[in-house]
Amino acid sequence: MASLSAERRGLGGGAPGCGPLIPPLSETARPLRQQIFDRVRAAGQIARVELAKELSISPASVTTLTSELIERGFLEEVRAPREADTGRGRPAVALGVRAAAHFVAGIKLSDREHTAVVVDFAGNLIAGEAISRQPGAMQLSDIVAASETLLDRVCAKAGLPRASLSAVGLGVPGFVDCPSGVVHWSPVLSDRHVPLAAAAAQRLGLPVHIDNDANLVTLAELWFGAGRRLSDFAVVTIEHGVGMGFVINHRIFRGSQGMGMELGHTKVQLDGALCRCGQRGCLEAYVADYALVREAQTALNLTHRENQSVGALLESLFDHAKAGNVAARSIFHRAGRYLALGLSNVVNLFDPELIILSGERMRYDYLYAEETLAEMQAMMLNTGRPAPRIETHAWGDLLWAHGAAALALHEVSDGLLCPPREMAAQ
Amino acid sequence: MASLSAERRGLGGGAPGCGPLIPPLSETARPLRQQIFDRVRAAGQIARVELAKELSISPASVTTLTSELIERGFLEEVRAPREADTGRGRPAVALGVRAAAHFVAGIKLSDREHTAVVVDFAGNLIAGEAISRQPGAMQLSDIVAASETLLDRVCAKAGLPRASLSAVGLGVPGFVDCPSGVVHWSPVLSDRHVPLAAAAAQRLGLPVHIDNDANLVTLAELWFGAGRRLSDFAVVTIEHGVGMGFVINHRIFRGSQGMGMELGHTKVQLDGALCRCGQRGCLEAYVADYALVREAQTALNLTHRENQSVGALLESLFDHAKAGNVAARSIFHRAGRYLALGLSNVVNLFDPELIILSGERMRYDYLYAEETLAEMQAMMLNTGRPAPRIETHAWGDLLWAHGAAALALHEVSDGLLCPPREMAAQ
Repeated sequence: MASLSAERRGLGGGAPGCGPLIPPLSETARPLRQQIFDRVRAAGQIARVELAKELSISPASVTTLTSELIERGFLEEVRAPREADTGRGRPAVALGVRAAAHFVAGIKLSDREHTAVVVDFAGNLIAGEAISRQPGAMQLSDIVAASETLLDRVCAKAGLPRASLSAVGLGVPGFVDCPSGVVHWSPVLSDRHVPLAAAAAQRLGLPVHIDNDANLVTLAELWFGAGRRLSDFAVVTIEHGVGMGFVINHRIFRGSQGMGMELGHTKVQLDGALCRCGQRGCLEAYVADYALVREAQTALNLTHRENQSVGALLESLFDHAKAGNVAARSIFHRAGRYLALGLSNVVNLFDPELIILSGERMRYDYLYAEETLAEMQAMMLNTGRPAPRIETHAWGDLLWAHGAAALALHEVSDGLLCPPREMAAQ
Repeated sequence: MASLSAERRGLGGGAPGCGPLIPPLSETARPLRQQIFDRVRAAGQIARVELAKELSISPASVTTLTSELIERGFLEEVRAPREADTGRGRPAVALGVRAAAHFVAGIKLSDREHTAVVVDFAGNLIAGEAISRQPGAMQLSDIVAASETLLDRVCAKAGLPRASLSAVGLGVPGFVDCPSGVVHWSPVLSDRHVPLAAAAAQRLGLPVHIDNDANLVTLAELWFGAGRRLSDFAVVTIEHGVGMGFVINHRIFRGSQGMGMELGHTKVQLDGALCRCGQRGCLEAYVADYALVREAQTALNLTHRENQSVGALLESLFDHAKAGNVAARSIFHRAGRYLALGLSNVVNLFDPELIILSGERMRYDYLYAEETLAEMQAMMLNTGRPAPRIETHAWGDLLWAHGAAALALHEVSDGLLCPPREMAAQ
């Protein structure tokens, strides 16, 4: 596998010092070239004529710009799948991302276990690994050390030296300032305002990009899931907390200053239920795991000394609800109504065509029951248009790590196609 | 003034039939060229070297692309203001939008009066006009006829024939589907799902673009106000209803499908106060004029037969609150708390650097009292960062019409710089 790494280094992709043989990319076409790369990446495979149609530009312009991207090793020509072949003349040729151009790692740090993947530039999984851990907040140095151990294990499994990676994406739950690389608060970190990206980059000797859970899932959908079909969609994650991600025109939107989309902490009741963020009336204080758990103790007549795991307690609550326990039912019913309210607010503000509900326990059907969707529709703006589609995607931790890898891929391709100091090289 | 119109026609701006002398704009640079135009337009005047710095491109690329825009008559060279002049060597030259390139009209239809302006391509006011009307919903044909009368009056005042306008922007309150030109509901229209843009375009013989109040104010800020300083900001309008507009990277964002940003109809209380949209718990049912008015009747001990105007009733309520009437105070106090909640939701979702509070009655200081802002901050995500700046801008109807003109300017420049079928011309 080491040859892959050598091959990658030979490409350089426009980075400083990549050799004088490939002329610099024409600067005036930079935004359009990036749009073309985004479209090819999203489509997986796409013919030049389709690209021209979708971007409303001439086939000649597409040929010029994609030639540059092929020359630089970002894209490659692939045989189009059989159904696109007319059977006449030359076989149809499509464009795809050149898988071997780069390798990146994605790491998801969470309360129960840390998971990691290595993927190629097209997002194909090369290797995955997980290590379990004791729940609880950790010191920065410990979490960076754990990341290094996990990264070395997954690299060994992938047969790639650590230095052959172009970047690492690191996902943590909590309030993450993606542009500055600072975690303002996370249940896995014992301190606030922690410069996690810089500390991890120093330890790993690689560029490190960080983001929160919900954005990771959204990036995974953008690169490998719904983004293949749609340019715009919303993701709502429901688990230990409630998160949101949003894609506009094939790109993730994190709010103007990089820390928006905190749907779980929008207020749905003045002076309402207490949230783990310390404020009152947050959506997640009615919908997230911990909100159900604290009422479950009342419904199931448990004392706080009966030490069940959150998962086991929710399983038990769900079983009681199915068996007809009125109190247990009312907990799910209320959570479903508040979820409907939160989703209707997403619709009224963002007007998405698709909302993906994502989480580990999405099988709790109160979350996507007919009544919940009907209630959401009743609280949406009455415009005569149909409600957005709602899809439910269950996720495991390995797929969250895949989202962290998508973050790294996103940063690598953006850095190569739109370098902040491209002008300096000219 | 007729010579202005002739001058404009001579330029053509890349429209079909503009003559063979000017070569077509290079297609691969289209998105960057549009970014350059947006920056110049937002800045008012900007030097080429500043453009290069802001867009991270070389001065050579800026010179190439701005030459094309000057050749086409979109931009022109202007003498930079005195303070930018170093006093040595050549006088500093900046770029600005070529004011005489196009003229557009903006019309605001509202319950009490209709207002209109004519502006040039740089947004300078050429003429303004208003006609009062009887309150109440109107038929489509009547509202189109009223628009025509008003347009002809403001054109006469501007000394421009109607045909010399490049487009008309038309603003109405309510649920407006901007891309399709359909008004799904408006207090000024007696029917739902009305194809207002198409009907007005047919009657006026000009391209007509429609949008709702809040987006008009946002476009006015983008073209003539806060957009001169900032690439991203939010606008919240508080008046007969509560609206919102949002600017990302110098462009207005209306939601994925064009009908988002309905902050006034996000739910802040499950099964809450009745909203004029027919649903319960909407933010505007706690904050807008009509929400205050219905409680004012209780606080001031009025019967519904005492027929005061909304304005007079609110003035009276405000006077009573200032004089110490506890019930009147509590109305403003509650509205302020719900406004704080709504603003904190805007911050938690969109993370803006600036929120502009805009409306006719912004002098009711409960809306921007210290306590309201403190409450907003208490409901914001605790990230250790400062709260966004809040500015309060009072608006008159003529300035809403200016926003409608900004809509027309936006559509004209987008149509010229990014025509959907530019490829067909090559």
